[in-house]
Amino acid sequence: MPETFPNTPEAARPTMIDVARRAGVGLGTVSRVVNGGHGVRDETAQRVRAAIDQLGFQRNEVARALRPGKKSSSLALVLGDLTNPFYATIAKASLEVAGQSGFAVVLGSVDEDPEGEKRAIRELVSRQVAGLMIVPDQGDHAFLAGAGVPVVFVDRPATGIEADIVMVDNEGGGRLATEHLLSQGHERIAILLAPSYYTTGRRLRGFRRAHRTAGLDVDESLVVQLPEGNAESAEKATRELMLRPDPPTAIFASTNFLTEGVLRALGELGREPAVVGFDDFRLADMLPTPVTVVASDIAELGRSAARLLLDRAAGTDRRPPQRIVLPCALIQRGSGERPPSAAKRKAR
Amino acid sequence: MPETFPNTPEAARPTMIDVARRAGVGLGTVSRVVNGGHGVRDETAQRVRAAIDQLGFQRNEVARALRPGKKSSSLALVLGDLTNPFYATIAKASLEVAGQSGFAVVLGSVDEDPEGEKRAIRELVSRQVAGLMIVPDQGDHAFLAGAGVPVVFVDRPATGIEADIVMVDNEGGGRLATEHLLSQGHERIAILLAPSYYTTGRRLRGFRRAHRTAGLDVDESLVVQLPEGNAESAEKATRELMLRPDPPTAIFASTNFLTEGVLRALGELGREPAVVGFDDFRLADMLPTPVTVVASDIAELGRSAARLLLDRAAGTDRRPPQRIVLPCALIQRGSGERPPSAAKRKAR
Repeated sequence: MPETFPNTPEAARPTMIDVARRAGVGLGTVSRVVNGGHGVRDETAQRVRAAIDQLGFQRNEVARALRPGKKSSSLALVLGDLTNPFYATIAKASLEVAGQSGFAVVLGSVDEDPEGEKRAIRELVSRQVAGLMIVPDQGDHAFLAGAGVPVVFVDRPATGIEADIVMVDNEGGGRLATEHLLSQGHERIAILLAPSYYTTGRRLRGFRRAHRTAGLDVDESLVVQLPEGNAESAEKATRELMLRPDPPTAIFASTNFLTEGVLRALGELGREPAVVGFDDFRLADMLPTPVTVVASDIAELGRSAARLLLDRAAGTDRRPPQRIVLPCALIQRGSGERPPSAAKRKAR
Repeated sequence: MPETFPNTPEAARPTMIDVARRAGVGLGTVSRVVNGGHGVRDETAQRVRAAIDQLGFQRNEVARALRPGKKSSSLALVLGDLTNPFYATIAKASLEVAGQSGFAVVLGSVDEDPEGEKRAIRELVSRQVAGLMIVPDQGDHAFLAGAGVPVVFVDRPATGIEADIVMVDNEGGGRLATEHLLSQGHERIAILLAPSYYTTGRRLRGFRRAHRTAGLDVDESLVVQLPEGNAESAEKATRELMLRPDPPTAIFASTNFLTEGVLRALGELGREPAVVGFDDFRLADMLPTPVTVVASDIAELGRSAARLLLDRAAGTDRRPPQRIVLPCALIQRGSGERPPSAAKRKAR
């Protein structure tokens, strides 16, 4: 890779985003200017060119990185089931950012299947994409080291390779949800976990930490590892939990689909323990009891990943692997604010 | 394009799907066999080869069409907002079918913006994809005639070009929804329509036809053309409708987002007219009054489009442009079964 900024320290090296920012325009406009300036007003184009010069960019390097139509002007995105709004939101956001820079996105959607994931990645790499965004499955990703293109992991780190990762504060979110329930007097809180993904492990860690801080022991029989990460699995587990002689008074559902399953079971049983879900979802506020969730900006996950990858692909960001962590916030809507006594009474 | 089946009439020309069917395997297996047979049992591979021979395929033509890693082994998919489950479902399904044949999918997601759509298509075509699947926006698509690759339109036809189209029976669905409401004694039925897309026009036609068949006039003041196709727009319109001195006793919401907006407004107002939505959506059955919808198999829309496009790209389907129409069905859940008298009373 050519050293284009010999006098600039690694961390301060300007990116295309810096050009856009300094010129007060979007990345798409920067792209149009370096590709000939069609559809950009003269005055704006001049401002962009000035910003490029001021920041010390080689103009044709930017052009090369941003020019559409070349086979290397595609990014690949490998992620799970697109009908899960979580993945769809990441896909949409990263497509938008890539598109603004003239990059297309080749999509590989694999439904939590390590072999399928590996195959999809190999196929995409063989298409000579400029970079890879991956929501990694479990398993070793050392094979990616030979891919010859930059990789950004989204939502979860991968083992076997050092690369950029953009994720949410899973442990902090897990603690936030649990502290909220504890603060309302709940002492028997169940947590439902999808099969051992990195994220749910971290959420469980936050759950434990909140208990420890409150001086409470976790009842291990309330830590439920589900065989599958779908709503049906959570529904079944919730039914079993609530029919025990000593049911929990609150449930922390560690993904959006699990929350749905918990609510289905409670609706059938007519029971109302407190419920907090991880990740917001459409219509959460319209359910019979609006759902309290711990949420983060999922679209920003996709945007940050795409921005970082574009800068890596263009060679304008050569820092060591970065770790970007987005915060979580609690959205109180009702289901998480029920007192422990509510779990015993029947729903209306 | 080479004439590989000189003695086969157009309509009877076998496709790769026929090979898969005759061999009793998936398209992915066919792909693996013609690409070397890795990971396929000898017996299965033999069956696939026999099917190819029996159907009169040139084996290397199939191989060329199915071989992964070539730049022409990508399909492009251009559609709207991926966070709309309707589009996400189409994307997921077409990715699955394409992937089974070793094809990647390059995605362009444009949010109901004709200029953005045109730009996205041009960019994708310049990447030399083997074919295009497009959920077309309004406006002339004649520019596609020069794209040099097969095009399949999904959900809506486009003007200016003759091409394959896979869609749902919008008019039939509109009639079904309206007949259901009429059969329960509703005579003042409002219909909410997103900006003049082809699909909503057809749904309106079905609405009118059902009225005509029942010998009723449509009250044109109850035909509401919304300025935007989002939930907020439908929410506002519903509030206005219900606060009229002569409100409707039933509402037909012609898209999933519009249905959401209608329900939000009714929840706030505490009114309970009958509601039928077009297209099913996640959690529709968990809302305070479960939602009756007219629905079709959206995933099949994506699958059919991808299958057709693969056959066109491989040259194994050379029929004139096809029009595939999927049926709609009514799913009764409660909101569509309220009698006219319910509209007057306040909700619990």
